[in-house]
Amino acid sequence: MDFEIVTRDPSSSARTGLLVTPHGAVETPAFMPCASRGVIKACAPDEVASTGVQAVMCNAFHLLVRPGSQVIHQAGGLHRFMNWPGVVATDSGGFQVFSLAQPKSVTDEGVVLRSPLDGSKIRLTPEVSIQVQSALGADIIMAFDECTSYPCGYDDAAQSMERTLRWAQQSKAAHDNSAQALFGIVQGSVYADLRVESARATAEIGFPGYAIGGVSVGETEAEMFTALDAALPELPEAAPRHLLGVGVPVQMIEAVKRGVDLFDCVLPTRNARHGLLYTWEGIVRINNAQYREDPRPLSELCDCPACTHYSRAYLHHLFRLEEAAAWRLLSLHNLRFFMQLMAQIREAIHARELDQLRTRVAAITRS
Amino acid sequence: MDFEIVTRDPSSSARTGLLVTPHGAVETPAFMPCASRGVIKACAPDEVASTGVQAVMCNAFHLLVRPGSQVIHQAGGLHRFMNWPGVVATDSGGFQVFSLAQPKSVTDEGVVLRSPLDGSKIRLTPEVSIQVQSALGADIIMAFDECTSYPCGYDDAAQSMERTLRWAQQSKAAHDNSAQALFGIVQGSVYADLRVESARATAEIGFPGYAIGGVSVGETEAEMFTALDAALPELPEAAPRHLLGVGVPVQMIEAVKRGVDLFDCVLPTRNARHGLLYTWEGIVRINNAQYREDPRPLSELCDCPACTHYSRAYLHHLFRLEEAAAWRLLSLHNLRFFMQLMAQIREAIHARELDQLRTRVAAITRS
Repeated sequence: MDFEIVTRDPSSSARTGLLVTPHGAVETPAFMPCASRGVIKACAPDEVASTGVQAVMCNAFHLLVRPGSQVIHQAGGLHRFMNWPGVVATDSGGFQVFSLAQPKSVTDEGVVLRSPLDGSKIRLTPEVSIQVQSALGADIIMAFDECTSYPCGYDDAAQSMERTLRWAQQSKAAHDNSAQALFGIVQGSVYADLRVESARATAEIGFPGYAIGGVSVGETEAEMFTALDAALPELPEAAPRHLLGVGVPVQMIEAVKRGVDLFDCVLPTRNARHGLLYTWEGIVRINNAQYREDPRPLSELCDCPACTHYSRAYLHHLFRLEEAAAWRLLSLHNLRFFMQLMAQIREAIHARELDQLRTRVAAITRS
Repeated sequence: MDFEIVTRDPSSSARTGLLVTPHGAVETPAFMPCASRGVIKACAPDEVASTGVQAVMCNAFHLLVRPGSQVIHQAGGLHRFMNWPGVVATDSGGFQVFSLAQPKSVTDEGVVLRSPLDGSKIRLTPEVSIQVQSALGADIIMAFDECTSYPCGYDDAAQSMERTLRWAQQSKAAHDNSAQALFGIVQGSVYADLRVESARATAEIGFPGYAIGGVSVGETEAEMFTALDAALPELPEAAPRHLLGVGVPVQMIEAVKRGVDLFDCVLPTRNARHGLLYTWEGIVRINNAQYREDPRPLSELCDCPACTHYSRAYLHHLFRLEEAAAWRLLSLHNLRFFMQLMAQIREAIHARELDQLRTRVAAITRS
């Protein structure tokens, strides 16, 4: 993997760049939609590519549960299994350990938890996670980390952050797939000093890229930016930075100003399935009765399949029917909006107009 | 509407033809997938067109319930509402009166039933059905009929058939939309003499096309063919004949041999959503564990999006996830198979090889 910074914003830490992987390049700042289980919900990979998406984020834990990493390895890896021509990243499973409510045990050695599919025991360690991610064959993989919940006391956050550091070392030691770039993950909850320490020590271990985890778990926006403000200056400037799980448009712009290059989130596709659509004219809640007879497309400024072929009235009808066709068309629309948004962010960095864009995006995403 | 018979099979009543409507032509024998509520489940109209589908069957009753015929009329009719470039037919609602289990009252005047959406009273008469179908704007519409359940005693079947005849007259009298072709519907349950009488009397009223209803409601295959053998010879040879609700491949070939030109059925798409796929190599039940690591496409002989882009292993994975993307891809596959099947039927009529095709199709659809 190679990362080249193309433009720097003189008035912030924002930058545009080009991330080059064995499966093509990604213009940054970039948004990766979540294909946690090997599919962007309700969409097929070939049509996701046509919205302009260059990279997707899969999840090692979910894919380990089903269909199993060996099935995907046998198929030639995630790219061939999904027939996805672009870049693939995998998350290590650390976030799922945190978010799945089932009984689990977390020790310094790793995590034992139950398969959500059949209740069988799954033991995840840094070594297992790296081995699974190597078999899955993504271009970018994540060190195994512990993601604390919110709120989290200082001592617990410190202990967990130190554990994540040890796991980062073990992940790096276990990693021997030269086709994959392993990112270290910064933790430390909402505590600035822990975030500083985590970022410094993770950078000291040394990775080709860094991710910031443990945000967007319930903390306030101010707390999230406190964490980012603490961590980002401690990371090597030349390496790409990925903010895990963030996809709120204005938050992404704020994070870009602080030096973030990569994002992933379920937000555009989940919101689409719930009928909330982003457009440059403002939020459309397609379930609302006002769209029942509206002959216009969702957006005059969009070239997605939904906007090209169908009216708001028809999409409203499909959505009320709880039609899978609606979930797909609306997901493709929101993905296309996010791709347009990231292109606007990159252009705004070049043009030094990021604050103007922030104002505009804040206005159109107010719901 | 214009119907031209192109080829006749000298050894049966099979024929190929061309049905020309204000929204394009349909090569017959043809299969129309069901878009009962204005959408072929899990698929968007633009991609259904790309599988070769030339005509779809919508349902006046379901569309009256939601979104309402006036909404569709305001949108410019079904073609514009769905953005469907091809031919549209609508069923009159008679079958839904039969199939919806709710309390209802059927008299000579018509039917009163409850909306499955909000419980409100809906009164359907021949005049209302024709008015609704006129507002929907399909190219082919159906007379309002009563579809008897199975089993049905002789006297009930006779009474119901006579009522359907009166409604056919009323439907014709109420029909004044010259852009639409109104088909009369033959009823009579499994009784050959009632089917003969129904077909003769319906033909006497005179319609540009005829549909055979009340089959595929639970009767045996032999009973269905008894009904067809009785009815079809009584219908004018020059008019197109539509067999309502039949889509089993071998049954369609048998019906074609008896002179049927048009079919509609939920079978290909419903089966796809249940994981049963038709291929020229035989039935594939994609949920079966044997496909877990199968790198081949569903069929080597198919050019649908599922077969072009994805392996059986990936489709198996998506199906097990209960992914809407699976329902869509598998539905498009089965629709493509049905289009290939109808093309094969038309070619076999030209080549006088319908019996050989029947043998082949019986073999590959044995499950």
